[in-house]
Amino acid sequence: MFTVFSACDAGAWRVTSITAVCGEPLPAARRVAVDRVEAPPQPSPGWPLAGVASHARYVERPERAQLVARQAGLGRPEATRAALIPIAKLRAWWEMTQDERRRIFEAESRHIAGSLKYLPAVARQLYHCRDLGQPFDFLTWFEFAPEHEAEFDALLVGLRASPEWRFVTREIDIRLSRA
Amino acid sequence: MFTVFSACDAGAWRVTSITAVCGEPLPAARRVAVDRVEAPPQPSPGWPLAGVASHARYVERPERAQLVARQAGLGRPEATRAALIPIAKLRAWWEMTQDERRRIFEAESRHIAGSLKYLPAVARQLYHCRDLGQPFDFLTWFEFAPEHEAEFDALLVGLRASPEWRFVTREIDIRLSRA
Repeated sequence: MFTVFSACDAGAWRVTSITAVCGEPLPAARRVAVDRVEAPPQPSPGWPLAGVASHARYVERPERAQLVARQAGLGRPEATRAALIPIAKLRAWWEMTQDERRRIFEAESRHIAGSLKYLPAVARQLYHCRDLGQPFDFLTWFEFAPEHEAEFDALLVGLRASPEWRFVTREIDIRLSRA
Repeated sequence: MFTVFSACDAGAWRVTSITAVCGEPLPAARRVAVDRVEAPPQPSPGWPLAGVASHARYVERPERAQLVARQAGLGRPEATRAALIPIAKLRAWWEMTQDERRRIFEAESRHIAGSLKYLPAVARQLYHCRDLGQPFDFLTWFEFAPEHEAEFDALLVGLRASPEWRFVTREIDIRLSRA
């Protein structure tokens, strides 16, 4: 199953802002619809964005235990704010070996450990799309209550200042709201 | 770019055998054509098989140095024999964390270390397809000269006896030859 994020006039989520954090921007959108489809989506330079919820690439067992103990699922009624953050990384990232990528991801950047303190306020689902031929490597979808948006912003400030982010070549920050 | 293996009457590679090592068999084929395509292939229960040459998931830096020093590329004129081995693994494999999968893959099964001694006689290219919605998780393509087929068989005997193979739920061994 693939998840497709489409720009449209009638989607469940209203776009409140689209910011190109780095790299080429994404076309404007009024609303975003989120759909699950069976067929691999064709690559597109802009909308729709598509990815696949896959197995974890870096998480180790003790980290997973902490994540599972703390994290919330998507779709909580109070989580009326969302962020969709498509990211592409440099070719140099993908040419590294697993141990090198893991070292930067966690030992140097504390991607998992640093994110844990924002759970369960911020719920998260990662979609992989590099192997689908899409222009981004990942799409991360976050959901939170309006009163936790400042915490979510702090999470992003931390990640964007980390050594891992030296490999980010394109990042779009799309904020959304639902009634 | 995606790589597609199609059963056809005019492909470059003649099929000499198709053996279902475990799980559901694959329909017979006379020849196989290998093509590179831009669009994500639609999943099919049999032929064609399709995957993507992606980044390495388990190899660490010292291992990569050994592989790069020893391995041969595809397309050597003397490598007139090939094997295409589609594999699917149990859901339990994919639900493990990265450290758990790596431990079984290398510490317990010596997947990389055990394969090194067959280089450069056996050339190899892995294609990932689980995230494309295909029925297999990987397709591995091997090329070797006829006089190295017995060594290749020994490589497979070792892998199939390893702890990693307890997670293999479907495996087809397709042997091919070209003029």
